[in-house]
Amino acid sequence: MTELIRSKIRTIPDWPKKGIMFRDVTTLLNDKEGYKHLVSLLVERYKDMQIDIVAGIEARGFITGAVLAEKLGVGFVPIRKKGKLPGETVSEEYALEYGTDSIEVHKDSVKKGEKVLLVDDLIATGGTCLAAANLMNKLGADIVECSFIVDLPDLGGKKKLLEAGYKAYNIVEFEGD
Amino acid sequence: MTELIRSKIRTIPDWPKKGIMFRDVTTLLNDKEGYKHLVSLLVERYKDMQIDIVAGIEARGFITGAVLAEKLGVGFVPIRKKGKLPGETVSEEYALEYGTDSIEVHKDSVKKGEKVLLVDDLIATGGTCLAAANLMNKLGADIVECSFIVDLPDLGGKKKLLEAGYKAYNIVEFEGD
Repeated sequence: MTELIRSKIRTIPDWPKKGIMFRDVTTLLNDKEGYKHLVSLLVERYKDMQIDIVAGIEARGFITGAVLAEKLGVGFVPIRKKGKLPGETVSEEYALEYGTDSIEVHKDSVKKGEKVLLVDDLIATGGTCLAAANLMNKLGADIVECSFIVDLPDLGGKKKLLEAGYKAYNIVEFEGD
Repeated sequence: MTELIRSKIRTIPDWPKKGIMFRDVTTLLNDKEGYKHLVSLLVERYKDMQIDIVAGIEARGFITGAVLAEKLGVGFVPIRKKGKLPGETVSEEYALEYGTDSIEVHKDSVKKGEKVLLVDDLIATGGTCLAAANLMNKLGADIVECSFIVDLPDLGGKKKLLEAGYKAYNIVEFEGD
């Protein structure tokens, strides 16, 4: 099943800039068989973990995150770029190649002690996901795992999450070519 | 069921600017009962319409769009802001309060004649959704319906879609206060 999922992910060379092999999950999501397999694999992993809520990171993390929440029978929390959420938020900064950016979540989106599954499509350097995990921690949530379709191990993001004490899972990985 | 859904949507006055009553669906998505009812109501509506693919408009349209695609057993297509999609795209401009913006979709995301369900969380002035529908038309898709959780009828977006020959559906509506 993992090989099927891997085969549906398209690689776009030199995007968004020269030298980057972009792993594009839109071709996987577009394919009904691939999409079905992806979801069933994730549900199988998380169905018995007593997840209370699923949080997805803007924007591609909304896709599998929302589906997983529905399949697990729980609610969904969007973690968004700065200035996109209308209610009272908490925010967390993360480093970009040049400068910093920040992400936010509604303060009332999780309750203290709730078991949160954190979802994104891909982990690269891990900056955004680490900030998202720290954000959930600030709210007192218990992060069960950070879940990705794709890991790019050369960029060290998963290692960074593990070193910070979080669990991390991915279905496939792609080495740099 | 509609009343339950309506009751879970939070109104935030004066956001993003003074005089706007922002209808925030995050409180609905966060609530497991509300979320379940939302999804079952949408699935009930679309399950027999022979939808081939579901397209969601960035970013909140990814949430219900992705869930609906999974429930209907079809693929999901993201319609994104300019510069976010790595493959070959087609784009469509739409007017903002000042100036214009554009949205894009991958050229190979739908096949000619495919029946597409177009999803967003809310329709206000309808500019983005009309552009998204026109984009899908450019690719030869057959738009079954544009589907929203919330319509703000005072802003005329749904009327605009209907006048352009598209079908439109929403679960709840909020008049200006």
